[in-house]
Amino acid sequence: MTLASSKLCAEPDSKARLRLWLRLLRLTRGIENNLREKLRLEHATTLPRFDVMSALSRHADGLKMSELSGVLRVSNGNVTGIIDRLVEEGHVVRVPVKGDRRASAVKLTPQGLSEFATQAAAHEAWIDKALAGLDAQDAQHMADQLSALMTEGERHGA
Amino acid sequence: MTLASSKLCAEPDSKARLRLWLRLLRLTRGIENNLREKLRLEHATTLPRFDVMSALSRHADGLKMSELSGVLRVSNGNVTGIIDRLVEEGHVVRVPVKGDRRASAVKLTPQGLSEFATQAAAHEAWIDKALAGLDAQDAQHMADQLSALMTEGERHGA
Repeated sequence: MTLASSKLCAEPDSKARLRLWLRLLRLTRGIENNLREKLRLEHATTLPRFDVMSALSRHADGLKMSELSGVLRVSNGNVTGIIDRLVEEGHVVRVPVKGDRRASAVKLTPQGLSEFATQAAAHEAWIDKALAGLDAQDAQHMADQLSALMTEGERHGA
Repeated sequence: MTLASSKLCAEPDSKARLRLWLRLLRLTRGIENNLREKLRLEHATTLPRFDVMSALSRHADGLKMSELSGVLRVSNGNVTGIIDRLVEEGHVVRVPVKGDRRASAVKLTPQGLSEFATQAAAHEAWIDKALAGLDAQDAQHMADQLSALMTEGERHGA
């Protein structure tokens, strides 16, 4: 620790944070590219489509299109196109929204739920392998540190 | 720590890793979107363009186009278009490659170097702010853990 500590003293903290940022970016990009490839090859699907089904799987009563768009800010997919396709395939169905006769929401069909369960299990296993170098406690500790950063960032509008 | 530990024992390690993955993704996406916006508003540039200039700033003798393409696998930019534009603006110049008369490389001009130095300083300050919740030692520790994951991932072809 002595060498590392003396090195850290000799440079501003911003250098260590910049180094961390570059590694965060490289690791997440690497894992993400890997996930895209595996989803395509092994499940004939895409990351935005997986993200949509994942969001729907957490909302048994369905989600409005506007709510789904928020989910996809992350993966930059075209929600309408993805939903149209999922409806055609029988994975998703449109449902009325209580108290708003003109609006509709979408939810997974039992077939869609079952297909997503298969994909989600594979996804969890890939991530488990990619992050196998961290035990559960280290992973939890890092996740907590990242959460604290996010909360702070949101507080400061950063 | 007791509550957290008992919770960890009750669930497979893969759940903690999955949670970590979702936070990694959310944090890096959030910071990245923020960077894109700031580069656009405050420096009239884009992330792929910043990445190209960053790579060139580390190679005073210049880089071949093929070497630059590798850099942009990350930011998905169109290298040729970016370089053409940087040449027009006087930030980049084409130079011959020693020992290969048909090939050419590109490097930053003094003007490009100076412009990039300004952008890089701003970038470092933004990252410093976004990750301010970690002190240098925590940042270094996390960076080391991520490096170990990457090395392992590469070794296993993951």
